[in-house]
Amino acid sequence: MKTPIAGGGEQSITDRLRSLIKIPTGSPLILGIGDDCAIYRPRGSADDLLFTTDLFIEGVHFLRDTHKAGDVARKALARSLSDIAAMGGAPRFCLVSLCVPRWANRRWVDTFFDTLIARAAETGAVLAGGDLSQGETLACDVTICGAVPRATALRRDGARAGHEIYVSGMLGGSALGLEVRKGKAWRRHLNPEPRLDLGVCLREKLRATAAIDLSDGLSLDLRRVCLASGVAAHISPPPRFPGATLEHALHGGEEYELLFTVRPHTRVPAMFQGLPLTRIGSIVEGPAGEILFDGQPLEPLGFDHFKTSK
Amino acid sequence: MKTPIAGGGEQSITDRLRSLIKIPTGSPLILGIGDDCAIYRPRGSADDLLFTTDLFIEGVHFLRDTHKAGDVARKALARSLSDIAAMGGAPRFCLVSLCVPRWANRRWVDTFFDTLIARAAETGAVLAGGDLSQGETLACDVTICGAVPRATALRRDGARAGHEIYVSGMLGGSALGLEVRKGKAWRRHLNPEPRLDLGVCLREKLRATAAIDLSDGLSLDLRRVCLASGVAAHISPPPRFPGATLEHALHGGEEYELLFTVRPHTRVPAMFQGLPLTRIGSIVEGPAGEILFDGQPLEPLGFDHFKTSK
Repeated sequence: MKTPIAGGGEQSITDRLRSLIKIPTGSPLILGIGDDCAIYRPRGSADDLLFTTDLFIEGVHFLRDTHKAGDVARKALARSLSDIAAMGGAPRFCLVSLCVPRWANRRWVDTFFDTLIARAAETGAVLAGGDLSQGETLACDVTICGAVPRATALRRDGARAGHEIYVSGMLGGSALGLEVRKGKAWRRHLNPEPRLDLGVCLREKLRATAAIDLSDGLSLDLRRVCLASGVAAHISPPPRFPGATLEHALHGGEEYELLFTVRPHTRVPAMFQGLPLTRIGSIVEGPAGEILFDGQPLEPLGFDHFKTSK
Repeated sequence: MKTPIAGGGEQSITDRLRSLIKIPTGSPLILGIGDDCAIYRPRGSADDLLFTTDLFIEGVHFLRDTHKAGDVARKALARSLSDIAAMGGAPRFCLVSLCVPRWANRRWVDTFFDTLIARAAETGAVLAGGDLSQGETLACDVTICGAVPRATALRRDGARAGHEIYVSGMLGGSALGLEVRKGKAWRRHLNPEPRLDLGVCLREKLRATAAIDLSDGLSLDLRRVCLASGVAAHISPPPRFPGATLEHALHGGEEYELLFTVRPHTRVPAMFQGLPLTRIGSIVEGPAGEILFDGQPLEPLGFDHFKTSK
């Protein structure tokens, strides 16, 4: 289903946008394009607000045959919630735009919203608005606002040489699920769990120096942290979901686990709410973005929507 | 291009959502679904933040043949900016999600973003993030955050019997443009001007009691104000764009002019920055949402995406 855009990948488009956009001095916008969320500091507020938005489109991100209305709602929401988790935020509200094709009847729409509203409410997010349209293809865009105490958001750019790299959970399950389409791996692909409580713990307790959610694959997402921080990394094999290959675990997307870095000698518990936290390597000095896996360069093979070749 | 959804219109879906969603007591979300924007009050902040999001989809809201990349960017942005204007806000930042089909090459994408970034910056909004995806149909979703001093946002629900009803500009030009596809009317359809300065003036100077932007037609949008405020209205013919029929002016959508109400005897200038402000009627006691036009009931014939019959 991939139709590459001539002339450059998603990364190249966002890199160009970052170079074009100048945030004016004194702007309440603290951080723009280039992290999991934008950060906005309201005048006089004790909180910084985090904003993220994610598309979820039939034929690109999911198939009508395999994803029921509730599945679409849960996963569309999970994608954005996971970005809030990666920055240590608490969800506050969401906006949902939905484009509805002919095949989705009123019952589909009602189930979609019932599931979304219920799931969002569990995380503290209220559905505050959105837009509805008819259209050819089912598409939804979920924007979430989260909050953190002022100047405490976890970012991608704080990793320094000597910091230790961890991941939550067992990787590769979502990619495996997409192949086998059954069992625990498929359920994991269908219904990922955004790590909101862990994100808050990383921010408040472990004082993580950088974090990102694994949406496009470990190899690509760790590279993003290293590029933003101007550092390199050495890693060893990450913990694998039962049945997943090393390839699944290194490059498979849609994990929605958190990758984070902490200062040396930080006491990271082996488990958090039943979820393993595993050290997989260290941040080192070196060419920004370079990752060595068991001593060999690791290519970023994760998912880029507009890449011309993979 | 209209493909109705079985079982109810857009209004019926949003009415259902409003009845389902309970904003918890003490929530920083002051206003949810049902106005031009949601209102969020950050902890300790001097400002309230306004949020709105609007879809703009090929084949539904525009045609590829008639809208170039820059036109799509300008109009997609104008739709959301107009919601911020209607509540008296100053734009702060935007998030843009873009689904790119095969026919739109990299140059298209670059022109789209160049236009959007430049136009947004003129209004004070910085492009702070978004999402990119490939897909079958070009679709974009623009979320805008605006700010107003705490508790001063213009809303739909403040109109009371005796208040006077005004509109900005000359109505019907966008609907006429869609028919004739040439001249000033077509340019008006293609490139509407969100009334941001007027919105601020309504809030600060004229202390408008209610406001809405005319996106779906005067008859439908005035009815929304009346329903939200629990009142009725009497109106006379509104000022017409040259060449537009009364039908265009009463029911034509995509005007992006502002309709507002003020207390009796408010001194409303005849012009604001070259834009006429015209009194078209009065708010009266009566069945909520009822509108009499020259003494006869006016049906709300404006645009509803999911209406089963028109």
